[in-house]
Amino acid sequence: MQLETTTVDIGTSRPLVLLNTVDADELGAHPLDRVRIEHDDGTATGIVKRTDELVEAGSVGVTEPLHHVRGTVNVTLAGAPQSVRYVRKKLDDVELEASELETIVRDIHENRLSDVELSAYVSSVYTNGLSLEETKHLTEAMSGVGQRLSWESPVVADKHSIGGVAGNCVTPIMVAIVTAAGLTMPKTSSRAVTSPAGTADVMEVLCDVEFTIAEIESIVTETNGCLVWGGGVDLSPVDDEIIRAENPLSIDPPGQLIASVLSKKRSAGSTHIVIDIPYGEGAKVESLVAARELADDFKRVGDHLEVDVSCAITHGTDPIGRGVGPALEARDVLAVLEGEGPESLRLKSLRLADMLLTHCGVDASATDILESGQALERFRRIIAAQGGDPEIKSDDLEPGAESTTIRADRSGVVTRVDNRQLCDLARRAGAPLDSRAGIVIHQTATNQIETGYPLYTIHAETPAKLTEAERLADRLEPIRVRSKADALVERR
Amino acid sequence: MQLETTTVDIGTSRPLVLLNTVDADELGAHPLDRVRIEHDDGTATGIVKRTDELVEAGSVGVTEPLHHVRGTVNVTLAGAPQSVRYVRKKLDDVELEASELETIVRDIHENRLSDVELSAYVSSVYTNGLSLEETKHLTEAMSGVGQRLSWESPVVADKHSIGGVAGNCVTPIMVAIVTAAGLTMPKTSSRAVTSPAGTADVMEVLCDVEFTIAEIESIVTETNGCLVWGGGVDLSPVDDEIIRAENPLSIDPPGQLIASVLSKKRSAGSTHIVIDIPYGEGAKVESLVAARELADDFKRVGDHLEVDVSCAITHGTDPIGRGVGPALEARDVLAVLEGEGPESLRLKSLRLADMLLTHCGVDASATDILESGQALERFRRIIAAQGGDPEIKSDDLEPGAESTTIRADRSGVVTRVDNRQLCDLARRAGAPLDSRAGIVIHQTATNQIETGYPLYTIHAETPAKLTEAERLADRLEPIRVRSKADALVERR
Repeated sequence: MQLETTTVDIGTSRPLVLLNTVDADELGAHPLDRVRIEHDDGTATGIVKRTDELVEAGSVGVTEPLHHVRGTVNVTLAGAPQSVRYVRKKLDDVELEASELETIVRDIHENRLSDVELSAYVSSVYTNGLSLEETKHLTEAMSGVGQRLSWESPVVADKHSIGGVAGNCVTPIMVAIVTAAGLTMPKTSSRAVTSPAGTADVMEVLCDVEFTIAEIESIVTETNGCLVWGGGVDLSPVDDEIIRAENPLSIDPPGQLIASVLSKKRSAGSTHIVIDIPYGEGAKVESLVAARELADDFKRVGDHLEVDVSCAITHGTDPIGRGVGPALEARDVLAVLEGEGPESLRLKSLRLADMLLTHCGVDASATDILESGQALERFRRIIAAQGGDPEIKSDDLEPGAESTTIRADRSGVVTRVDNRQLCDLARRAGAPLDSRAGIVIHQTATNQIETGYPLYTIHAETPAKLTEAERLADRLEPIRVRSKADALVERR
Repeated sequence: MQLETTTVDIGTSRPLVLLNTVDADELGAHPLDRVRIEHDDGTATGIVKRTDELVEAGSVGVTEPLHHVRGTVNVTLAGAPQSVRYVRKKLDDVELEASELETIVRDIHENRLSDVELSAYVSSVYTNGLSLEETKHLTEAMSGVGQRLSWESPVVADKHSIGGVAGNCVTPIMVAIVTAAGLTMPKTSSRAVTSPAGTADVMEVLCDVEFTIAEIESIVTETNGCLVWGGGVDLSPVDDEIIRAENPLSIDPPGQLIASVLSKKRSAGSTHIVIDIPYGEGAKVESLVAARELADDFKRVGDHLEVDVSCAITHGTDPIGRGVGPALEARDVLAVLEGEGPESLRLKSLRLADMLLTHCGVDASATDILESGQALERFRRIIAAQGGDPEIKSDDLEPGAESTTIRADRSGVVTRVDNRQLCDLARRAGAPLDSRAGIVIHQTATNQIETGYPLYTIHAETPAKLTEAERLADRLEPIRVRSKADALVERR
């Protein structure tokens, strides 16, 4: 069918093709069917949406991934991409071959799968699992698309933390220590997706984080390291698509997780990696046994890819550090480097940095490097190289001016500091977009406190956001206090 | 956030909410997140799409399911509906309670699930299966939404064929015989989704098929039966949504199939049902064992719902009848009722009609009713009651004038008549929208034929459609002929 192209913007990464109902019926095209579009410069495939108004009969609307398609085109029905058969196979719990996983990764990368198909892939991997062999093949396939970085140094250090812990901004401290010890550590990090702050959001409070590959290379040459946003360099781009389907379902199957992390690390040119696996109530990994299994699989897939992987199993039930939100976490990071700061953040960063140094074969003490001021000095060089003010101090970072402090309504013991609830509150207060919004945590579990002691403070940049966060706080109990004398929590 | 409503039509059953990227960032709303919209007349929930152009900052675009939302509204982030937790539970292979299945059905019915979530539901049911208890609860839940029909007669006959067989238009013949025997059989049927003709499409060649419930009641009072489109009366509407996610994945899990079929039958007020289960290579049910298991489960769920279910396991490898496509199948139906017509269609219709008569406790012979002309006479009354011409004869139905006959290029035995390929060809030729398009099959399996014998004829309404179908025919081999003398199929 000959149709005239018109561009439509409906903010989707899918290559949608909007057809007027009249034309769609004529073609026999149902919603989610695919059409082949022959245009002047080649052939494209799109997923059908039907419309009565947005596009008139005789026209075909194309969304952003197809905005290169212009003019008069020939539209015909096309079949489903081959990978749909392999998704179906995985739903049937049949092990996939390397080439089949490659096809799935390629079709995801080229945006050929509809949401229904992508979700079926993620669901099948979640419910039927990936074997170690499949995980290896998937990791290879995922690191086979997108850009790759390469470094002169034979040893390139890296780390990754499995998410879910509030605060936990160990990365900048580790990079400062490890690069001060002479190692190369070009760290690419993510922005927040469902959390109140990714490492890239935290660093952006202090300096730029978006750079080209050439710029990153020059920063690393100058300082041994960097702390930049990974989204700017398109490493393992398929991961972002997969996460888009995993998030609404709150699933993160282990095999897929390993493939996502290690494919990114491999594309980033890393050779020695420490993986931080927090476990416990409310964390992504719930039990020590599961954490150990995940660690072993990470190491096995690492061996297959010839990258050295070492895993740290850590406590995941409680937040790390005091601040939750970009500026508040940046303040904790600077405070630790300045020799102060929250003990939980300081200790975890030192332990992981020591592990990474040892793992890379460097005989140095993270504590010595931190306490001598070398780490802070190195961090300032990185900030300067990334266009920030190297003289910035933790005290310069002011949290959002609108604030409320929530206090204990009874005396007793702090029994729980809830990661998820604190993250939800920080987001409601405006983080990560409002960089100075977030939460400051005043208590940790097992503290003995009295009525009126501060539990946590909400910071926001505007009164409206503060009110919204306060409203949510009324319904939550992110820091729980239990009085031993009182068996009853409340009467209603 | 206060926003001005603007309506957007992008042909989706989802309640999509288009937000400008600026507003979406401000809200912290990612694609597929949900927002709550407080408007003058109440509160609605929508699924977020982000856009740079379609909707400007300060406005919110709403798609059809939300077109009642107007004016200035307050938009806030909302959580996922409860059923997403139950979908997750099913992905974890945990058996669902009746109330959890009810919640899933209600959320699907109210369009609260995104494509990703709906697909995860369908995938979880496919891969982890439904227990008999779950199937019973799901069937009850599905028949609990949508309209219900009720009839004065204590016995209401019905039938259903599991799809996948080309032709197979036994329903009109069965209705004619069974209603002529004095039983009530108000048959609601579907239009084609992925096939070249649903029963409703075939009947539409002869008369109207879209009626209100009151009209259907008056047709049934007059003739004991009807042959109408079920989509017009909204029986078990959740089924359509589920099918929308199953189709792209080509999956149809047994538990879901049983729930879909029996919930529709129950809502239609049927008491005695014959289920036709074709099995064999290329059919939905591949083995006799699987067909028997499905039959037993159909009967068990029927018992639970207090409807009498009887199952016929039939041959599903070959087409039934000669015509494939609305008019060509209508011609076969009329020919059988007139005492001629394809033997396969005549025999299958008689066997199933006999089963249904016995099942309903009526002592009558389908063959006698057909051969005496009572079935034809009754069918004419139904056609008249549905606004068609009762005098129409099979010879009056002309297939599409553009045609090509494909002939055997060797002598030998017909080894395979492929349902799927014939259906694909009929659709390519224009069926079901072009009602006179389709295929006429000239051979059945095991026929001994000579070079040049006709295999099948493609009919289309326009030369362009014929050309498209011919092109597809060149790549397929829907009717395979094997010469015993020649071990080689061809040399290239």
